[in-house]
Amino acid sequence: MTTVNERLAWRYATKKYDASKVVPDDKLERIIEAVRLTPTSSGLQPFELIVISNAEIRAKIRAVAWDQAQITDCSHLLVFAAWDDITADRVNMMFDLTNEIRGFRNEGWENYRQKLLGIVAGRGTEANYQAAARQAYIGLGSALIAAAFEEVDATPIEGFDPEAVDEILGLNAKGLRSVLLMPLGYRAAEGDWLVNLQKVRRSRENFVTEIK
Amino acid sequence: MTTVNERLAWRYATKKYDASKVVPDDKLERIIEAVRLTPTSSGLQPFELIVISNAEIRAKIRAVAWDQAQITDCSHLLVFAAWDDITADRVNMMFDLTNEIRGFRNEGWENYRQKLLGIVAGRGTEANYQAAARQAYIGLGSALIAAAFEEVDATPIEGFDPEAVDEILGLNAKGLRSVLLMPLGYRAAEGDWLVNLQKVRRSRENFVTEIK
Repeated sequence: MTTVNERLAWRYATKKYDASKVVPDDKLERIIEAVRLTPTSSGLQPFELIVISNAEIRAKIRAVAWDQAQITDCSHLLVFAAWDDITADRVNMMFDLTNEIRGFRNEGWENYRQKLLGIVAGRGTEANYQAAARQAYIGLGSALIAAAFEEVDATPIEGFDPEAVDEILGLNAKGLRSVLLMPLGYRAAEGDWLVNLQKVRRSRENFVTEIK
Repeated sequence: MTTVNERLAWRYATKKYDASKVVPDDKLERIIEAVRLTPTSSGLQPFELIVISNAEIRAKIRAVAWDQAQITDCSHLLVFAAWDDITADRVNMMFDLTNEIRGFRNEGWENYRQKLLGIVAGRGTEANYQAAARQAYIGLGSALIAAAFEEVDATPIEGFDPEAVDEILGLNAKGLRSVLLMPLGYRAAEGDWLVNLQKVRRSRENFVTEIK
């Protein structure tokens, strides 16, 4: 049986992709769908996913991401872009969508809407953006595992200039800010310095505390 | 075949647990292991996992978490606690562990250690904590999917007073700050208002942009 932990052990932060190999559409769609299905705080889904196969755009992004070759050699580049603010409009959009999909309005849910509107108004734009950005990391977790189940390699990347990527992709106009990059593709047969090195994690006893 | 997306569709933020049901050790261990195997930025694993079955401690946490009954009714409560700072000692601990596990020192890796030490020293305690906290969300993503594969219910919770939980668990003395709670257990047969409601997610076209 293929298990989550077997897949997590298989994956690694791929350093060299085979630029000739393309992730098939059905696999790509399932990885995207895992991100879309990922739960987020209050169900807001306060981020979007940009899926880039365009070579020119990827070359521009590589230039503002420490020249990491995975960005251009991979099959598809995912960009996780968080809401730049959690505005009343955005909260209302998701609560209205909930009512529409479920087909009814519920008093408890409407009270929670008002509470949440108060919270996001009170804490301000930057704190709202930071809260939204955190949610994108849950999506990254899903994407990593979904890719591993598809036997698709992936590389989570925080090392890039977010403002420059926002500029390249015109994210400001959409009220988004880039948070994470994730190349998807297939590892090269040769030249990946990390592929054969042992995975390093702290031992269970240095990572987990049980309170019984 | 059980797929990641089938499991993501199955799970929901469980609102009412059956307090009589306990998650078996082997399932709990596989969920914990998924979190431990989760990749993090620069491999730092800048968070720890606290696994609480103790009833008294859970009652105290419930009192500072909007009185959410899942915290006491579940089988085990996970607390994701991020490093309160990414200190030089912590960076060196993980880089030294890497050298120890892999059995060699590598110049590129040592250069990266120095670069990272410069980054974390430069950006300061609060920014380091925020960066660490984001990584815990990747772990949450893994835990959610791992639990779903085990047919264990789970509820991601941001709604609590982190300082109060830190106090209850003595996290400050360990250089940790609580970021997320996650009850694990089994949904009650009755009384969960959310279990039969349709899952709400934005459509693919409102969530994904492709640049070809």
